[in-house]
Amino acid sequence: MAKIPFIYDIRVGWADCDPALIAYTGRLPCFALEAIDAWWEEHIGYDWYRLNIDQNVGTPFVHLDLDFLSPVTPRHVLNCEVRLRKLGEKSVTFQVIGRQNSIDCFSGNFVSVFVVADAFKSRKAPEDIRSIIEPLLIEDEGSSPD
Amino acid sequence: MAKIPFIYDIRVGWADCDPALIAYTGRLPCFALEAIDAWWEEHIGYDWYRLNIDQNVGTPFVHLDLDFLSPVTPRHVLNCEVRLRKLGEKSVTFQVIGRQNSIDCFSGNFVSVFVVADAFKSRKAPEDIRSIIEPLLIEDEGSSPD
Amino acid sequence: MAKIPFIYDIRVGWADCDPALIAYTGRLPCFALEAIDAWWEEHIGYDWYRLNIDQNVGTPFVHLDLDFLSPVTPRHVLNCEVRLRKLGEKSVTFQVIGRQNSIDCFSGNFVSVFVVADAFKSRKAPEDIRSIIEPLLIEDEGSSPD
Amino acid sequence: MAKIPFIYDIRVGWADCDPALIAYTGRLPCFALEAIDAWWEEHIGYDWYRLNIDQNVGTPFVHLDLDFLSPVTPRHVLNCEVRLRKLGEKSVTFQVIGRQNSIDCFSGNFVSVFVVADAFKSRKAPEDIRSIIEPLLIEDEGSSPD
Repeated sequence: MAKIPFIYDIRVGWADCDPALIAYTGRLPCFALEAIDAWWEEHIGYDWYRLNIDQNVGTPFVHLDLDFLSPVTPRHVLNCEVRLRKLGEKSVTFQVIGRQNSIDCFSGNFVSVFVVADAFKSRKAPEDIRSIIEPLLIEDEGSSPD
Repeated sequence: MAKIPFIYDIRVGWADCDPALIAYTGRLPCFALEAIDAWWEEHIGYDWYRLNIDQNVGTPFVHLDLDFLSPVTPRHVLNCEVRLRKLGEKSVTFQVIGRQNSIDCFSGNFVSVFVVADAFKSRKAPEDIRSIIEPLLIEDEGSSPD
Repeated sequence: MAKIPFIYDIRVGWADCDPALIAYTGRLPCFALEAIDAWWEEHIGYDWYRLNIDQNVGTPFVHLDLDFLSPVTPRHVLNCEVRLRKLGEKSVTFQVIGRQNSIDCFSGNFVSVFVVADAFKSRKAPEDIRSIIEPLLIEDEGSSPD
Repeated sequence: MAKIPFIYDIRVGWADCDPALIAYTGRLPCFALEAIDAWWEEHIGYDWYRLNIDQNVGTPFVHLDLDFLSPVTPRHVLNCEVRLRKLGEKSVTFQVIGRQNSIDCFSGNFVSVFVVADAFKSRKAPEDIRSIIEPLLIEDEGSSPD
């Protein structure tokens, strides 16, 4: 059964672009991170801000990698698809694919760990969060990156 | 024979930090990129701006990956060591290690390709650049990441 | 006759916030600028990127001022109202009011001049642009800031 | 008697520039703010991060204004002069002048108020801070902006 993809749209603007007339490399991880923040908000009902401050749950990153496939520009909306790829006991892995005008612009992986926010101490994924997001896992299907 | 490491120092400030009281994840690739920009300036005499605009040589990124080892804060200077790791016919790979107070905070790899800047067309590394940077290559020594 | 206000909505996120748990001061001018960029796109059909690159018309800023009235946080969407306040021969003045949950968070003024983009030379407002935006001028009505 | 000017130097890079080949408008307030942050660190011994977190004193901004006089580019270091202009009971006003290659690029004013950081409540300037910074006030001398 196919899951409905989570797509977060970003307006790319002049502010994001460098003298090469494309979005600056350093902006692209930020776009992907913003899409992951929106994924949490959509599925858990808390964005990172509320998750940290209201729920005392943090999800700092321990890894990210990105392949840049095609330049991002303001000429099209940037559609960021976020896929939950792995859910470990204490960590969570997302893949983010950024597309413009149906062309893959970047794809990458982002690994977070769960922490008690105010202590910045590692913890297991909270059970209520696990029960909500576990069904959202998107299995790897051979050719897809992971 | 050991090479003198290239270390680029960054002042981390309030502006870089998020509500978790640490530098925001999205800032860390930007710090590493800025260090690479400074590496070019130091060794070639052109930063990315001058390399693109004055020399018509661009070095867009096709890949980056980062492992986050320890939080970055404004309490110490961020020392970014940039190592030239590979020099292909048309590409160049850097490792960047960010340290604060002698603790490794992040380490990552950044792969650029050479382009004719105004055409955004792939090209070989310019010979004058190759001749300058080839001696700067830092061989992998077993335990180091690459 | 009342004009329909132009409101540009921005998602404020964790990435925008500093350790005081509010959007960083330096992000607020950026939000307002993004709203002005969107105003151009809506009314002229060109955002700054296309205006500069496709039309060779630039609108660099010569002044901005902002009063900060209430903190901006991720708890509400940021509604940025953009008002065209003045249209000089060679310049254009916008007021931007940022609101969250119907509370004014900031209000400011932004003055741009028209330039030939590739020469960065001052020029009069292009006639086609003037004819489109002149009717959008919002007169000052006593109590409103300007 | 002349006071020694406080100058904070910023490396402007590719990352700061937009397709007009100059530092993006939205970066310029950030440069000025960073210089003010460094001013506090130099004179009080605490940057904003330590002032807020270690001393529970915040200085959120209620106003800023900037005039842009000449484009900022990566071709020169950006020298930001910070002048303490006013010290009210509960507020403090800075002027920041950004120069490259001895040319004024921007000049602006920044007004902060003192707050109890963890309560975000207005307060008077702490006496120990007042006693240190009061002698640093730079009187307006006719022609200078304020």
